[in-house]
Amino acid sequence: MAEEIRLSPIGRVRSRGGQGPKEIEIEPEFAEALDGVDAQEHLWLLYWMHELPPEDRRRLKTHPRGDRSRPKQGVFSLHSPCRPNPIGMTRVRLVGRTATRLVVQDLDALDGSPVLDIKSG
Amino acid sequence: MAEEIRLSPIGRVRSRGGQGPKEIEIEPEFAEALDGVDAQEHLWLLYWMHELPPEDRRRLKTHPRGDRSRPKQGVFSLHSPCRPNPIGMTRVRLVGRTATRLVVQDLDALDGSPVLDIKSG
Repeated sequence: MAEEIRLSPIGRVRSRGGQGPKEIEIEPEFAEALDGVDAQEHLWLLYWMHELPPEDRRRLKTHPRGDRSRPKQGVFSLHSPCRPNPIGMTRVRLVGRTATRLVVQDLDALDGSPVLDIKSG
Repeated sequence: MAEEIRLSPIGRVRSRGGQGPKEIEIEPEFAEALDGVDAQEHLWLLYWMHELPPEDRRRLKTHPRGDRSRPKQGVFSLHSPCRPNPIGMTRVRLVGRTATRLVVQDLDALDGSPVLDIKSG
């Protein structure tokens, strides 16, 4: 299909690895859009899985949870990172914030992942 | 920010308006990715709000639920369609399916909206 949709990141995931809290660094031009976010205990985060190998965007079936003992399934019936448009979608817990940074728990995203959107959770 | 992320729709919302079920028409090249979807009662749908006026992508604060009696809030603390990257995110109920069409309930998306991703719900 010829049609293309173009997005620009509104920020980036900052992670030092491990299971601890991660930071979302928002571009200063979008800081105003965070107004009121403090009242939320949870937020939905949409981010781009920027390090997914291109061949995983073409893989339409895979093993659930990477478990090879289970038969392959279509990626639209799974949460696998393999998918044509690798948008990660995670409900995170907000544990802190500065003017342009959110500190969140429960986010499994690589350092540097472009953040596409944040919604109330 | 110079970086751009490019997506191609995997399908399109088909709606005759009203509150009834809507159809998701999947591009035939992605049909295989629907394998196993029948076992799901709910699915998450990510779609592009293609008819959002460009000025609403630049609006960073708005009234919650469009209610002007409530003070404006940042769009990242809301589910408003106004947002820099207007990605709609809805948990829908799957009520039917053919090889390349899903019939879903609870989707408030305009006819022709490009579908970006489908995940287990």
